[in-house]
Amino acid sequence: MDKYMLKRRIDTAAGRIPADMVIKNCKIVDVYNSAIIEGKSIAITDGYIVGIGDYQGRQTIDAEGRYAAPGFIDAHIHIESSYVTPEEIGRLLVPHGTTTIIADPHEIVNVCGINGLNYMLEASKGTRLDIRYMLPSCVPATPFESSGAILDAERMKDPIKDAQILGLGEFMNYTGVVEAEDEVLSKLLIAINEGKIIDGHSPSLSGNALNAYVACRIRTDHECSTKEEMLERLSRGQYILLREGSACHDLRTLIKAVTPANSRRCLLCSDDRQPETILRLGHLDNHLSICVEEGIPPITAIQMASLNAAECYGLLDRGALAPGLRADIVLLDDLTDFHVYQVFIKGEEVSREGKYLPEVQRYDISAVQGCFNVKDFSVDKLRLKSRSRRVNVIDILPGGVVTAKGTTEVTLNQEGDFVWQPDQDIAKIAVIERHNGTGNIGLALLRGYGIKSGAVALSIAHDSHNIITVGTNDEDMAFAVDNLIKQGGGIVLVKNGDVINSMPMVVGGIMCDRPGEWVSEKLAQIHKDAYEQLGINKEVEPVMTLCFMSLAVIPEIKLTDKGLFDVMQHTFIPIEA
Amino acid sequence: MDKYMLKRRIDTAAGRIPADMVIKNCKIVDVYNSAIIEGKSIAITDGYIVGIGDYQGRQTIDAEGRYAAPGFIDAHIHIESSYVTPEEIGRLLVPHGTTTIIADPHEIVNVCGINGLNYMLEASKGTRLDIRYMLPSCVPATPFESSGAILDAERMKDPIKDAQILGLGEFMNYTGVVEAEDEVLSKLLIAINEGKIIDGHSPSLSGNALNAYVACRIRTDHECSTKEEMLERLSRGQYILLREGSACHDLRTLIKAVTPANSRRCLLCSDDRQPETILRLGHLDNHLSICVEEGIPPITAIQMASLNAAECYGLLDRGALAPGLRADIVLLDDLTDFHVYQVFIKGEEVSREGKYLPEVQRYDISAVQGCFNVKDFSVDKLRLKSRSRRVNVIDILPGGVVTAKGTTEVTLNQEGDFVWQPDQDIAKIAVIERHNGTGNIGLALLRGYGIKSGAVALSIAHDSHNIITVGTNDEDMAFAVDNLIKQGGGIVLVKNGDVINSMPMVVGGIMCDRPGEWVSEKLAQIHKDAYEQLGINKEVEPVMTLCFMSLAVIPEIKLTDKGLFDVMQHTFIPIEA
Repeated sequence: MDKYMLKRRIDTAAGRIPADMVIKNCKIVDVYNSAIIEGKSIAITDGYIVGIGDYQGRQTIDAEGRYAAPGFIDAHIHIESSYVTPEEIGRLLVPHGTTTIIADPHEIVNVCGINGLNYMLEASKGTRLDIRYMLPSCVPATPFESSGAILDAERMKDPIKDAQILGLGEFMNYTGVVEAEDEVLSKLLIAINEGKIIDGHSPSLSGNALNAYVACRIRTDHECSTKEEMLERLSRGQYILLREGSACHDLRTLIKAVTPANSRRCLLCSDDRQPETILRLGHLDNHLSICVEEGIPPITAIQMASLNAAECYGLLDRGALAPGLRADIVLLDDLTDFHVYQVFIKGEEVSREGKYLPEVQRYDISAVQGCFNVKDFSVDKLRLKSRSRRVNVIDILPGGVVTAKGTTEVTLNQEGDFVWQPDQDIAKIAVIERHNGTGNIGLALLRGYGIKSGAVALSIAHDSHNIITVGTNDEDMAFAVDNLIKQGGGIVLVKNGDVINSMPMVVGGIMCDRPGEWVSEKLAQIHKDAYEQLGINKEVEPVMTLCFMSLAVIPEIKLTDKGLFDVMQHTFIPIEA
Repeated sequence: MDKYMLKRRIDTAAGRIPADMVIKNCKIVDVYNSAIIEGKSIAITDGYIVGIGDYQGRQTIDAEGRYAAPGFIDAHIHIESSYVTPEEIGRLLVPHGTTTIIADPHEIVNVCGINGLNYMLEASKGTRLDIRYMLPSCVPATPFESSGAILDAERMKDPIKDAQILGLGEFMNYTGVVEAEDEVLSKLLIAINEGKIIDGHSPSLSGNALNAYVACRIRTDHECSTKEEMLERLSRGQYILLREGSACHDLRTLIKAVTPANSRRCLLCSDDRQPETILRLGHLDNHLSICVEEGIPPITAIQMASLNAAECYGLLDRGALAPGLRADIVLLDDLTDFHVYQVFIKGEEVSREGKYLPEVQRYDISAVQGCFNVKDFSVDKLRLKSRSRRVNVIDILPGGVVTAKGTTEVTLNQEGDFVWQPDQDIAKIAVIERHNGTGNIGLALLRGYGIKSGAVALSIAHDSHNIITVGTNDEDMAFAVDNLIKQGGGIVLVKNGDVINSMPMVVGGIMCDRPGEWVSEKLAQIHKDAYEQLGINKEVEPVMTLCFMSLAVIPEIKLTDKGLFDVMQHTFIPIEA
């Protein structure tokens, strides 16, 4: 800050000069005293609140008796999971009262490395939403698949110093922490010695193993799914992020463990939130209404979405409505549905009645486009060569991302390749390495997907985002893969040699350069076609199910570009059972 | 931290290697959940807590069922007001459970400038108590007296960067802030732009003026004396320090405004605490027992003395008992009297049953000794030359530091000098500049002190600590001043040409290089002699009353080396009424 600005701030606060803007006639949510302040205005100058009191401004906003709350902070979100770019996530979230998000660009960095990070940092400047980042800690997430980049401790040293980067992203390799693996220690020390925050991710960790994890100053956890887990972590000093995303719904369970004594250590987050969910349910406004529905006092809920998150992440310039803080303000019609009327970020009106007002400045995506380096792919590479009709299959368990390991008898041709049978719900699945031109292909059999003709291919496959394809015949699968590469990634549906639908995701092959509404609508069409044209099992989410099929940390059995992986045994296994 | 230490920490937490120390059989105070954890031990390695659970250690402490609480943090204290050095304050406070203090060396820096600050920083290394400092913001405190040093914004630039310095000390010049004075802005910006904390001091400030003060990111206040003041400041985002010192007793009043909703923003502090108070009542253990007596739940009280203070001052390595935090632990017999049995700092037992255990390493005081540069002082300089028998007098108001402006008729000799009369309780008072050899002397008349013979001289005179003397005759006054200078400062009582008692304070003329017990005992003797030998009014605190006689910010009328100052009119006035 310079002296001129500080003087203006004081002069305005003291009432000697008019404020840039005054919001009058509002019920101010005081998150410090858990009270509502009535009969006072909020004075704003140079984007900061200068006073709560009686003020004159060059511009006056009449809040018409609405509640004024501090802007909401999502403590943990992967923008990539919304399939849109940072500029666009701003356009989608801000109308719901979100003014700050803490994003972990784990996916794009797994694909594009530091280039991906830099793209996200730059693209974030195209939205008024304040996007802070955590540096992904686990790139690659596991050694069992090929990622587009390796972010080791050495490569973290510079980016961790960036002011927009608050610390190290969720440390998923919790086993590595508890076992004190050398490279893990190097990464942790990068953050610890820079005085930066480390986010946690350690589902089910407990007792002394949890102590070991927390003793490294891993400050947060957003993976609790039971009250007991949450209370133990709180007691060990972790902040708990109550998650409500598109896939994971922990908020209603965890909110029951929130008490007046521990609420200050509780935050809200979405982790993954698809455009469809945002457009239908909203964002933290939805979290807040769930909290209140579950019996949490409204201001306690707002604290979780503001002050608590600001404290946890050291964002000392926000989290409340008070002099000296950023004028990130949400005007709400009520404190039950938390219907957002108007949003101000740094004193600028950025949304009214659900509409994002500023122009969205789309950042050049060329640095993260065309991320496909696939070597020697052809339909021949899809031939399976099993020496036995008795095979291992990946069993889909509908409604989640966990799979089961099954065995069965299948029909093979003379070369040992799988022959699809209409009466058996088993299809061929392939994962094609796309980053380093290794020519790697993993092949396996998937049961329960229901596909009855054609093929699906996509380039969203956590965490390395290689190409996944499933189909009833190799030709459609190969055609789908070829088209997927041609369109720069995304999703392709093929039937009888024709692309029947496709969704290009040209940003790293995992995000669209289109509006969220388009993404949402397109995904709905793709789901419809997947069910109706390809006959995919309606109990299965046709896209998401495949997206997690390479994630070799989730039980029981997964397929990566390196082969069929038994997560429980921690080893690759052959197709033959 | 290095990798070896991090690995040891994890290995110990995970139970693979024994801890350095395990505290077993304790009721662990969980300040995060406001709960008591029973049946678990605290494991400590390399001075840090690594786990709460079942552990083996090379050393085992049996807490015998006592409560284990996080070490207490005094959020604001002036060590100089205890008349002892930093090493010694550690010896006095630690047995009461205090493990961290945030000290403002305002007094010594007013006397010795940056030399004084450096002395404090170095001397602090001689105690296990973790002493963090705030950089005094108002040196000199006012332009109405001569200080030993000037600490302007330019001179603050380097020290503010010191890791042991958390920010800018209480910004007493609140008028300067609200009026946006140029030099004030420069000082504030030093802290703001370094991302450091600014402590507040703004009694009675309210409304838009308070907004202006807080808009500069002044984070704390320890001067509230009413619930209303406290709630307004909380609502504007300030942390409130509930003060209980030797002179100011705000805790019982303010504690009534503490609620479950706002307690997280409340801290405890002592501001000024004399050895006698520490030895008789304790320190934060005393604050805690007062809180509980006033109906605050014990763990809420402990939070104020630990977690809340750690959060406010960004001391992220302490404030609770949890893995990864400093092993600053207090074993308490109970949660009502908060009787402290044992204290650990960074895993070392530093106190047991009221006794400080480590050796106190006394730091060389030569840099802050002999701070007396008095020019041309002689008995002649004490001659008053009033042109009128009708004079202004400083009226003592017993029980506080506020004075009243009185007028009366006195006896003068031919030269216009004051002639002391046994039947009138009026004595001559002089303030002699001692830092810059200016030869300045302020002379005035003091009513109500009660002195009946001899003189008192002292070199503790807030905030510039010039020499103050009061007496019935010039010769005793001059003799007292001469002896005070000779002994390196402190307090001298003279009667009939003899020194009848004296307390040398050789550290800057404001602190003793002796143990707190000696200071306490000596002060008691001096009080006794002041009352019995010099006949000072028993309703008046004979030392403290004079200590604040130069403080030109406290109403109504004061005397500095520059003359008689009317605080209400903000101007110097003549002796003649």
